[in-house]
Amino acid sequence: MERLSGKSIILRMELDAATGKFGELASAIAEAGGDIIALDVIETSDKTSVRDITVQANEISFLDRMKQKLTKLTGVRLIHVSDRTFLLHLGGKITIQAKSPIQNRDDLSRVYTPDVARVCLAIKEDPQQAYSLTIKRNTVAVISDGTAVLGLGGIGPSAAMPVMEGKSMLFKQFGDVDAFPLCLDTQDTEEIIRIVKAIAPTFGGINLEDISSPRCFEIERRLKEELEIPVFHDDQHGTAVVLYAALINALKIAGKSISDVKVVVCGIGAAGVACSRILLSAGVKQLVAVDKQGILTPSNCEHPMHKWLAERSNSGEVTGNLQDALKDADVFIGLSAGGLLRRADVELMAEGRIVFAMANPTPEIMPDEIEDIVAVAATGRSDYPNQVNNVLCFPGMFRAALDCRASDINEEMKLAAAEAIASIISEEELNKHYIIPSVFNKQVVPAIRQKVIEAAIRTGAAGKIPRDFR
Amino acid sequence: MERLSGKSIILRMELDAATGKFGELASAIAEAGGDIIALDVIETSDKTSVRDITVQANEISFLDRMKQKLTKLTGVRLIHVSDRTFLLHLGGKITIQAKSPIQNRDDLSRVYTPDVARVCLAIKEDPQQAYSLTIKRNTVAVISDGTAVLGLGGIGPSAAMPVMEGKSMLFKQFGDVDAFPLCLDTQDTEEIIRIVKAIAPTFGGINLEDISSPRCFEIERRLKEELEIPVFHDDQHGTAVVLYAALINALKIAGKSISDVKVVVCGIGAAGVACSRILLSAGVKQLVAVDKQGILTPSNCEHPMHKWLAERSNSGEVTGNLQDALKDADVFIGLSAGGLLRRADVELMAEGRIVFAMANPTPEIMPDEIEDIVAVAATGRSDYPNQVNNVLCFPGMFRAALDCRASDINEEMKLAAAEAIASIISEEELNKHYIIPSVFNKQVVPAIRQKVIEAAIRTGAAGKIPRDFR
Repeated sequence: MERLSGKSIILRMELDAATGKFGELASAIAEAGGDIIALDVIETSDKTSVRDITVQANEISFLDRMKQKLTKLTGVRLIHVSDRTFLLHLGGKITIQAKSPIQNRDDLSRVYTPDVARVCLAIKEDPQQAYSLTIKRNTVAVISDGTAVLGLGGIGPSAAMPVMEGKSMLFKQFGDVDAFPLCLDTQDTEEIIRIVKAIAPTFGGINLEDISSPRCFEIERRLKEELEIPVFHDDQHGTAVVLYAALINALKIAGKSISDVKVVVCGIGAAGVACSRILLSAGVKQLVAVDKQGILTPSNCEHPMHKWLAERSNSGEVTGNLQDALKDADVFIGLSAGGLLRRADVELMAEGRIVFAMANPTPEIMPDEIEDIVAVAATGRSDYPNQVNNVLCFPGMFRAALDCRASDINEEMKLAAAEAIASIISEEELNKHYIIPSVFNKQVVPAIRQKVIEAAIRTGAAGKIPRDFR
Repeated sequence: MERLSGKSIILRMELDAATGKFGELASAIAEAGGDIIALDVIETSDKTSVRDITVQANEISFLDRMKQKLTKLTGVRLIHVSDRTFLLHLGGKITIQAKSPIQNRDDLSRVYTPDVARVCLAIKEDPQQAYSLTIKRNTVAVISDGTAVLGLGGIGPSAAMPVMEGKSMLFKQFGDVDAFPLCLDTQDTEEIIRIVKAIAPTFGGINLEDISSPRCFEIERRLKEELEIPVFHDDQHGTAVVLYAALINALKIAGKSISDVKVVVCGIGAAGVACSRILLSAGVKQLVAVDKQGILTPSNCEHPMHKWLAERSNSGEVTGNLQDALKDADVFIGLSAGGLLRRADVELMAEGRIVFAMANPTPEIMPDEIEDIVAVAATGRSDYPNQVNNVLCFPGMFRAALDCRASDINEEMKLAAAEAIASIISEEELNKHYIIPSVFNKQVVPAIRQKVIEAAIRTGAAGKIPRDFR
């Protein structure tokens, strides 16, 4: 445990009935710098008792001091230490509930045999009935292979589960979407495609998550083509939607137009490609993409997505490094690595600079270093203003897609979601420290739902016109 | 809708504001034989209103009569008709909930980024932590390919969902197990095996369901070998466990011993093989298996499972048809087809006859036809005494398997579950009409849990000794 979240930790202690003395233990905790704030007896027998002792302790060193003191006590053993984050994860973070209780034989025969057979046959006769009579209507799969989890990389499917469970919580809390996490024990592109296609009958949508590049591109492209339910790789498009939402509002502050600005995108992984793509769709005419090899040009790229992007960007045919790209740029979008940008680099940009330094956990440059020379700065962090957080997008996006039985989440729907997010902040509220609404803003999901369903209907992606859109 | 469940149905009606008259509609419903018991306005506009009218009506002919009367009314349209079973299925029967709400930034950062990273790393360092820190501890996959659903056969994955959702409800209600249904759009044995293996990191157990024979045998066998979590094909082993539980108590009534009786198993599909297998494990020495070709002998079988069974049964080397097998038999176990058995066939059996006629939905012989000549009769139906219902087994079986982190559900655990179910009925309560407890009997799951965990520990299948077993 490298650091303690919050201030309270829970010590599970076992005391021998004969020799363990709680008074001594309490003294040891106090001397080590902890305040006991709660005591729960977990089990007792003739020989031992197990207790959970909740302790307020400001410093991690408390644990070391306490462990040392424990060595001097007899009949007292520390079983384990939990902080609140770990406690919140015990047994997982989501649960599956029946919508109605089975209280008697009549209930049982309706939800299960024999009566359920009539419902099965109704779906067999008209497969569209699956949207009415099964969980498909409101259920999304959150799929990962554990290869690119947060900033941790390829930690594997089991270790990725807490992130996917967290995602499922967010889907429910913000979008009222039932989302189930599935972490796959395979990294084979074709196998992942086959698996997702095979499980699709259960779901109304597929959210791909934390799958490493370049496999993520092929997996998403193929699934979009081959499935009739929407497929959305959140690391790409969630980030892109929120980035574009932030840019809409940042441009208002800078007094610039999307068709005029020169944008530098730095770090062309999955998110960088998606951000570039949405900006091109949104009307950006001058976009320069920069990766480790420098400015992307059709001749210096091998990766097919890099090539794709190089062919559609850099119309001024600039070559060189990041600094060459930044000259007179209006917008910097960083999805690269912490500390990559210096203040002097930002000074190369045109006046009214917009700097989105979204590398995680450390931004390309800390906002306070450039506060005085930029029109707007944003990061991916929650402890600075203007957090570009994809939690703003996916709950509303899937709420919309499910409600109109979308067959796809297309480019127009993504642009619509970004516009919806940007629109939450009124002209009066808008300022350089407030260009993106909070994830707790209750207007966000309804606004996205409205705009995205309109776009889905307009573009023919909607399989159904929801009642409130008729 | 071939029949109405219960007595109330809901008519969703649209009335034109200008011409539709509710009074006329109400009269039409009354004249057709329905009583209006509730009225809900769903939406209204200047032009129309939509209302749900709940009607008590005893006969299905009501609908025909009412539809005819509606043709004479103007400005009134029937949008759809729902009965209670269909209403219970609207939007599916299960939902995914967060265990704790995300109320503020602090909550968000614990269950999702950045703090969740510490939990991920803890699992990466010690994969066993997945059982503590993810839903694996309490979550089972309910897997079907929709090839052998109820008595309906190969209705496909979408149409199979209502059964699997019902199963998930039962898992939760009776066993407090979180079960998620996955219906697979493939019937390829190898692909199903690969898919289940790939999704295994999320789950603590696999319940296979309604997969047609003979593929179900290979799929289960391979998954049991290749996975470290328990795999249980409920159609086979759930049925077998409850059948054996019923037989334990039936033998008490008949005053016979399992090692002495001659048992005829008729219908050697997935359940028939599993029932035969558990009976052999339980000590039955004289077992005769009968399928369409007659009594199974090593020379007349092609199906590998039939051959397997023929080699282990029929030690008296009887040949011929069902009637030949029944001569002097003590127990008939039917998993074949409705009406296959005549009273005269049962009379061929030895005195103190035990007849389990479990074909669905129509038993091999109706219990009332043989009431006077049998010691005990049982069926698979809920409208006769002694229902052999596998809902009695799987919730407790997986509760036990999850609680001791079982790597397998082995033969000893199945026998233990059957003994636990049988033990619920005391010697005093036991009679020919009460050999199996109700699925609503709250003693069943705790009794199974106790016995199965003991068996798992004894046989080395338990990965953990639960606290209450130390």
